[in-house]
Amino acid sequence: MATLSDIGVSALINILTAFAFLLAFAVLRIQPVNDRVYLPKWYINGGRSSPRSGGNFVAKFVSLDFKTYLTFLNWMPQALKMSESELINHAGLDSAIFLRIYSLGFKIFVPITVVALLILIPVNVSSGTLFFLRKELVVSDIDKLSISNVPPKSVRQVQYKIFNEYLFAKFSSFSNELWWDYFRCFVHIGLEYLFTIWICYMLYKEYDNVATMRLRFLDSQRRRAEQFTVVVRNVPQISGHSVSDSLDQFFKTNHPDTYLCHQAVYNANKFAKLVRKRDRLQNWLDYNQLKFERHSEKRPTEKFTDLVNAFNFQTGFLGLWGKRVDSIDFYKQQIKEFDKNMALERQKVLKDTKSILPVAFVSFKSRWGAAVCAQTQQSKNPTLWLTNWAPEPRDIYWQNLAIPFLSLTIRKLIISLSVFALVFFYMIPIAFVQSLANLEGLERVAPFLRPVIELKFIKSFLQGFLPGLALKIFLYILPTMLMIMSKIEGHIALSTLERRASAKYYYFMLVNVFLGSIVTGTAFEQLHSFLHQSPTQIPRTIGVSIPMKATFFITYIMVDGWAGIAGEILRLKPLVIFHLKNMFLVKTERDREQATDPGSVDYPETLPSLQLYFLLGIVYAVVTPILLPFILIFFAFAYLVYRHQIINVYNQQYESGAAFWPHVHSRIIASLVISQLLLLGLLSTKEAANSTPLLAVLPILTLSFNQYCKHRFEPAFRRYPLEEAMKKDIMDQTTEPDINLTTFLANAYLHPIFRSFGEEELVEVRVDKVRVDKNQSYGDNAQSQTSDDHSSPSPPHHPTTYPPQDVYHHGFPPRYAYNFSSPTHYGYHYEAEPGNSRA
Amino acid sequence: MATLSDIGVSALINILTAFAFLLAFAVLRIQPVNDRVYLPKWYINGGRSSPRSGGNFVAKFVSLDFKTYLTFLNWMPQALKMSESELINHAGLDSAIFLRIYSLGFKIFVPITVVALLILIPVNVSSGTLFFLRKELVVSDIDKLSISNVPPKSVRQVQYKIFNEYLFAKFSSFSNELWWDYFRCFVHIGLEYLFTIWICYMLYKEYDNVATMRLRFLDSQRRRAEQFTVVVRNVPQISGHSVSDSLDQFFKTNHPDTYLCHQAVYNANKFAKLVRKRDRLQNWLDYNQLKFERHSEKRPTEKFTDLVNAFNFQTGFLGLWGKRVDSIDFYKQQIKEFDKNMALERQKVLKDTKSILPVAFVSFKSRWGAAVCAQTQQSKNPTLWLTNWAPEPRDIYWQNLAIPFLSLTIRKLIISLSVFALVFFYMIPIAFVQSLANLEGLERVAPFLRPVIELKFIKSFLQGFLPGLALKIFLYILPTMLMIMSKIEGHIALSTLERRASAKYYYFMLVNVFLGSIVTGTAFEQLHSFLHQSPTQIPRTIGVSIPMKATFFITYIMVDGWAGIAGEILRLKPLVIFHLKNMFLVKTERDREQATDPGSVDYPETLPSLQLYFLLGIVYAVVTPILLPFILIFFAFAYLVYRHQIINVYNQQYESGAAFWPHVHSRIIASLVISQLLLLGLLSTKEAANSTPLLAVLPILTLSFNQYCKHRFEPAFRRYPLEEAMKKDIMDQTTEPDINLTTFLANAYLHPIFRSFGEEELVEVRVDKVRVDKNQSYGDNAQSQTSDDHSSPSPPHHPTTYPPQDVYHHGFPPRYAYNFSSPTHYGYHYEAEPGNSRA
Repeated sequence: MATLSDIGVSALINILTAFAFLLAFAVLRIQPVNDRVYLPKWYINGGRSSPRSGGNFVAKFVSLDFKTYLTFLNWMPQALKMSESELINHAGLDSAIFLRIYSLGFKIFVPITVVALLILIPVNVSSGTLFFLRKELVVSDIDKLSISNVPPKSVRQVQYKIFNEYLFAKFSSFSNELWWDYFRCFVHIGLEYLFTIWICYMLYKEYDNVATMRLRFLDSQRRRAEQFTVVVRNVPQISGHSVSDSLDQFFKTNHPDTYLCHQAVYNANKFAKLVRKRDRLQNWLDYNQLKFERHSEKRPTEKFTDLVNAFNFQTGFLGLWGKRVDSIDFYKQQIKEFDKNMALERQKVLKDTKSILPVAFVSFKSRWGAAVCAQTQQSKNPTLWLTNWAPEPRDIYWQNLAIPFLSLTIRKLIISLSVFALVFFYMIPIAFVQSLANLEGLERVAPFLRPVIELKFIKSFLQGFLPGLALKIFLYILPTMLMIMSKIEGHIALSTLERRASAKYYYFMLVNVFLGSIVTGTAFEQLHSFLHQSPTQIPRTIGVSIPMKATFFITYIMVDGWAGIAGEILRLKPLVIFHLKNMFLVKTERDREQATDPGSVDYPETLPSLQLYFLLGIVYAVVTPILLPFILIFFAFAYLVYRHQIINVYNQQYESGAAFWPHVHSRIIASLVISQLLLLGLLSTKEAANSTPLLAVLPILTLSFNQYCKHRFEPAFRRYPLEEAMKKDIMDQTTEPDINLTTFLANAYLHPIFRSFGEEELVEVRVDKVRVDKNQSYGDNAQSQTSDDHSSPSPPHHPTTYPPQDVYHHGFPPRYAYNFSSPTHYGYHYEAEPGNSRA
Repeated sequence: MATLSDIGVSALINILTAFAFLLAFAVLRIQPVNDRVYLPKWYINGGRSSPRSGGNFVAKFVSLDFKTYLTFLNWMPQALKMSESELINHAGLDSAIFLRIYSLGFKIFVPITVVALLILIPVNVSSGTLFFLRKELVVSDIDKLSISNVPPKSVRQVQYKIFNEYLFAKFSSFSNELWWDYFRCFVHIGLEYLFTIWICYMLYKEYDNVATMRLRFLDSQRRRAEQFTVVVRNVPQISGHSVSDSLDQFFKTNHPDTYLCHQAVYNANKFAKLVRKRDRLQNWLDYNQLKFERHSEKRPTEKFTDLVNAFNFQTGFLGLWGKRVDSIDFYKQQIKEFDKNMALERQKVLKDTKSILPVAFVSFKSRWGAAVCAQTQQSKNPTLWLTNWAPEPRDIYWQNLAIPFLSLTIRKLIISLSVFALVFFYMIPIAFVQSLANLEGLERVAPFLRPVIELKFIKSFLQGFLPGLALKIFLYILPTMLMIMSKIEGHIALSTLERRASAKYYYFMLVNVFLGSIVTGTAFEQLHSFLHQSPTQIPRTIGVSIPMKATFFITYIMVDGWAGIAGEILRLKPLVIFHLKNMFLVKTERDREQATDPGSVDYPETLPSLQLYFLLGIVYAVVTPILLPFILIFFAFAYLVYRHQIINVYNQQYESGAAFWPHVHSRIIASLVISQLLLLGLLSTKEAANSTPLLAVLPILTLSFNQYCKHRFEPAFRRYPLEEAMKKDIMDQTTEPDINLTTFLANAYLHPIFRSFGEEELVEVRVDKVRVDKNQSYGDNAQSQTSDDHSSPSPPHHPTTYPPQDVYHHGFPPRYAYNFSSPTHYGYHYEAEPGNSRA
């Protein structure tokens, strides 16, 4: 149990850490050499091409303007300057709404903090029973300000008091103290009601706002491929018909007025793997060429190959044995071989009908047609012809399109069981590893280390370090694990994957950070004891421990919230990686662009921790309000930092139109219900059990409020209303009546792998081709604009040299452009691209 | 605890009762005078117009053919003759699928009974621990055949035995008995797995069948109004625009190619009340006229008026004071007055724009258009322009269309809370009433009864009877109460109302009949103790009592199942009512038709009790299999009875296309899970706790099977696939390309009240009207066919005499026929009807 002064020390340390980070950031930020680390967004947007710098050589790397060092916090007001609509244009709706979560937290908790501090602290302190016991019992100062200090009012006590008062002081001094006790108890309940109503009101307003913003955002968007496109899954395989044929036939029959074209999806996962490997080889070649350029006296040689070919015995296993070869020649030859394989594989993918997946992107002539198709059931067998809104092309997780639809139910079941196991039993394997990873185990595995380990200093260090190591490694890889689990579930959009991973992380945090900190023992032990307790006992068990853990959570907020956020702005990891890349790989300005890693908001990690702060704030608002100012500071500070990062650094990979909001909303509601149940448990221990029915109504009301919000707002995030679709269609018809949608949509949903060829071989192909009609140019412009944001797996400035000529040599007339009855049609579309770029 | 002989006696009594009912039925059925009670369906279908009868007068009332008395069970093979497809044509899909539930029950339980009896009874009997204790303890014979007889294997006991065997009989006689115990325990678990798999397999097959049958049924239907129509709720009220205008505008914009017309809905609830009252007056007039005709010497007089006008002081209060009037004149005058009021009210409804509700039936040019509109979201505000499939015209519960949409959420919340209260606390008010309804209370209220009550015989009778009276009255009105609650929830289709009432009744039965019989104490006490027990303790508490209650449930099945079903076929209540009506009201053949009450399958009561039998069978299959034959007999017998009733008696009010099946399916799954949890609880008391993890997997698998079925089949019951809609549209276009849909649909969804005028005044109106074009005739034929089934509130053979001429005098050209921009347009459609009937 920490005292107030302990908290003070912890606060001081964390504030100092945060300031140190901020200072480091301020200094590093203004160095021109770090410009691409701290302002990458502006480079990507094209607003900036080179760092501001003075004339001399040193100024290119280090800022010499000492004035800038003095105003080291001036990024804060700068971050606030941009208006919200500018922000949406600059960084997209997702980011803008993400920031609104922080400002919502701030707006919710400011009045709560004021009211709670003004009302509750006097009420809790005045009670005074703890004042005298404090020295004897181990009760912290914080506890004095919390609800623990409201004395238990046993029924007997109350009865005795009433009896006393009634007899001896019938009129004059009737049980002032007693009523004061009751009053305090009802103050807590009243405040819980007040806060619930306030939070619900704010949530409602915010949901309304966000839904409106989303619809306005969708409304204001230019013509985009996903507005016209629907993803169809589980296309039935009819023998004798190709997938394309049955697609065409089905949609021409059932959507005769609106169906336009479709794009088949190829199982290119193997090909993508090859592309990735080739990419790595290319990097090594670049590295060696650069090395040779810098030290031209000595051609670099290899004793071992890269890890990709580690088991290739031609060059030796892991370099332990093997002949020394010339690196540049070696990699060049390797790449050549790869290119040959890839050309073969590519042809195989495009020609083999088996590699056409029963999935397709079906495009319509109007947004209305797409909206209708996405929202309706197509076939009488509801597991066939499943239609859904297509995600943005850059949002698609292509690998999962190859998962057979029927396995999805089983995959979901398995993953939910594993998440349950992970949340409750993750300590078991870790404890097992810990039991192995002691010094004796280490000595047995690696006897040659014994002399080192036996050194006293190292021994004590290892003994303190090893047991925690397994846990730390686990926590570090946890988000990746959860993401992999979500991928196994088979969602086809990155945004969905991140949302699912975020949900899993939230459950983990809720059980292991929140409940785990409050109740002693591992999550597994808790689960066991909860299963053997009565349902009414659980909130009581937890509720009692809550006030005592306030100090822990205050420390947690300072370490994870304050210092963590300050660390976020420093971007230490990208900084180091950028400079390493700069040193070893960068030759041209374009390479430097490649090396710039703007990153993006890491939703799977930030959203759950954000929701944890909401939970802490809501739970402690009535119990220990002294915790609230710490949360307020977190929200304000994090808002500033993330606003700065979003404006200057992050570059989102996709735009989901704030599709995460319903989850944020429902988790704040869940926090409210948790807080109500825990207060119920806490008050029932105070033997003020009479008041519990008053509180028991609150969760029901809160949940029905949630239901209402779901009905009222959620459809805006899941469906596209026909009214809106029709409005945009009509607007389009009046402004651009003669647009050729077919060409605009034809290639939008092509697997990015097939786009990742350099321009050179396309030029070669182009030579003997007919000219493409001028109409197509618009479509290709738009297409490249939607696809360029996607970081293409193979760097476009290293042209691959495998023009699979036969693929490109089909001279289909333009009317076939949307009719992909044979996979080789891709050739046609490819020629359109360079034709356009030459124009 | 009943012994085997007790059960035998009970079985004998119930079998005799059932036979008595069957005999009575057989005798009553063949009397020509009862023909309309036992074969009404054939009268309605037009297959029968008068009872088969001999020539003489007596034979008209009593069957004189004594041969028919000998073959009194011959209805049974007759009931089985009709094939399923004939049955669907004869009585609709709902009835056919309802029968399938019984045959499903039979098919599921026959193999289970055989396997369970063959395997479990030897296993349970052989154990023998109970054999010796039986006389001392109060353990029933049935218990011996149930799982109670498997001896508890405490861990210590097992350990001791193993130790013993190991030391002294290492090889020869190694713990045969011990392994036998284990074997028996695993036999139960193995059977539970086997039965679960079997039931799931049967459920899957049946769901598949039913879904296919439903789609085939929808596919085979003729052109029907509901296929083209969507109900739109919460049409926004724009000031300056009428509801009709905004409807037209909205759908012309957003469904330009498919929108055809719409029909506004009027708030005619007040008018409907007047119609009902007038109806009652008409009945009294008929009664008196009939009385006068029979005894023409004396004109009937009234001292008091009917209850409708009980408080009308003109004729005196309840007849206690008041002047004597001539009955026929009095009622004639009353009806005349009513007609005046109704004409006024009707004009008010049709003219007042405020009586147009924000609800409409919107019709489309094609089924495809309607399917699209019903499944998509129209407006960006998801609480406006809510579209759903329109129920059949005769399925609509018109009163609820007037409920403001926004109040639905609150209504649902309130009703779910009240259902919860009703299920768990219904005993509280009943106990209160019981405490009042004792003899002392009765004497205080009605002192003049004292001498009667004090008689010994009457006193003892009342003392035994009174306390149970409140409960009996409650149980009798319970289904009505639940139906009223469902109506308050605001569903607009009768089929939905019945499904919701049925769900509520199921919860009541589950808690109060099933759990309430197993665990002692009221449901409220159970709830209290469950809240204070650990979640793992609950199935244990219930599980232990389960084997002991087998005898009770066997008796329950015989009383409620066997005798109850036999009572169903006797139709005592309709029989009495029909003969009473026949005596006092029937003048013409048409009156007799009116007096015929075929009734219909009472889904809200039969479905839950049916599901209770499934629950009993599934729970006891592993525990006390001796109960299964009783359930088998119930299923077989009920199948026969209901098949007979559906073929000969019932006339369903609506056709929902087996929309209740998903509920039946999911409740059988719920029964499976309940049985698994209870077996888990029961086995854990046997200290065979090691086996519980084996069983714990089963509920998870069962629930995911349910999820899979939901995804696979439920959309067939909720949505209309576009493929099907398009297929039927195309077929229509080829067979009847020049049909005028507008007239077909124009009046289909008119409030039935506005149709309830006789033909006479319509003829009057017709005289000065233009002829309607020939095209409309098809539409009106179809419309009258769909609406005639609906029992119209005012009897059509008593023409009302108020032709509100002004309403009929708008001569709109035909192109306005679908454009209800003003409420007075109804006049136009009315004139179409007689125009057609004259043609």
